[in-house]
Amino acid sequence: MADEVKLFGMWASPYSIRVELALKLKGIPYEYMEEDLSNKSSLLLKYNPVHKKIPVLVHNEKPIAESLVILEYIDETWRNNPVLPQDPYDRAMARFWAKFIDEKLLVTTRKVSFTAGKEQEQAIEEITEQLKQLENELQGKEFFSGHSIGYLDIVANVLVSWFGNVQEALGVDMFTEEKFPILFDWIGKVVKIDIVNECRIPKEKHLDYIRSRLEALKSASK
Amino acid sequence: MADEVKLFGMWASPYSIRVELALKLKGIPYEYMEEDLSNKSSLLLKYNPVHKKIPVLVHNEKPIAESLVILEYIDETWRNNPVLPQDPYDRAMARFWAKFIDEKLLVTTRKVSFTAGKEQEQAIEEITEQLKQLENELQGKEFFSGHSIGYLDIVANVLVSWFGNVQEALGVDMFTEEKFPILFDWIGKVVKIDIVNECRIPKEKHLDYIRSRLEALKSASK
Repeated sequence: MADEVKLFGMWASPYSIRVELALKLKGIPYEYMEEDLSNKSSLLLKYNPVHKKIPVLVHNEKPIAESLVILEYIDETWRNNPVLPQDPYDRAMARFWAKFIDEKLLVTTRKVSFTAGKEQEQAIEEITEQLKQLENELQGKEFFSGHSIGYLDIVANVLVSWFGNVQEALGVDMFTEEKFPILFDWIGKVVKIDIVNECRIPKEKHLDYIRSRLEALKSASK
Repeated sequence: MADEVKLFGMWASPYSIRVELALKLKGIPYEYMEEDLSNKSSLLLKYNPVHKKIPVLVHNEKPIAESLVILEYIDETWRNNPVLPQDPYDRAMARFWAKFIDEKLLVTTRKVSFTAGKEQEQAIEEITEQLKQLENELQGKEFFSGHSIGYLDIVANVLVSWFGNVQEALGVDMFTEEKFPILFDWIGKVVKIDIVNECRIPKEKHLDYIRSRLEALKSASK
């Protein structure tokens, strides 16, 4: 039986882009199902009844949710072009920093997005510190994963276009080449990789989307 | 060279108990270093400069932080008595529910702890729903991991004594045998396992600890 691989995703989600990158890196053909998050499909709700969120990978009718869990599944199911490093300690470090990106960096990004004034300034200070810690991890390396992109580069891909677009839509100045030369050097290298380029978020469409979402959330909280 | 394994933990932390359970399950000798979280050791700060938190496993001078990352590391480094299932889909499900426990169940527990009145009632409703979802996952199985305890049982071990003690200290009634017969049946089985019993948190000491911590946090936020 040929593998049937479907991905339920959303064009502007860094989480579903991660899964696309891993599938493309391994050359796995898949059917992409775009979800309208304001009107989720019954299939998405069936496949991810707990979180009701994208991305969901469905492999031969078996659903898997949570992007980091999906990445591990892909790597364990299709063994070519390993995504995670081979050494247990290197694997632990990759997982540690992936968790850091999701649980610190992206959580603080939300803080920056939904605060203003002094509170926003503090969140920007916090995220600057977190970006420095992440940059530190990259120091002296070509990619996070060594000489080619892997698991942590895929997770950190959120910095490539998504993060800059959010910054621009918010009109803040927290992630610049001047402050983070090593991260920007890495971005310069990853955008030259075909599969990364194929997954780039269209900028103007993304800016419009972020602005309208922020507006909607702000007026809902009034 | 013999393996040198050190664990920086704290007696009441369900996260450091997870690591102890995995080490004991595999029969790995380790040195346990109790941390005073109000006065963290310079070694802890050196080994986990990013989060400054326990648990940290130090294996031959190499530190690993974050309990779920440590569990994967232990399983990949010492191959006897596998902790994670072997099948990639079963592994994905175990990881999915472990994330659920940490990012939903334990986050809502904090909400229950730091709210009162209507807000606390809502948090209790939320946690009841989450416990039902977790219970659903256990239905028809002897343990979360099948016929013997494994990764998800180790992570869910937070329900064995820690969770009940928190509930008792808070004086709320959210986790009872009547509401969750399958989870309580599982607890009845796991407490009979020697290594689980060795890692049980002393109840009275724990109740005193939770009460004094809640008091301190409440007066700090006034």
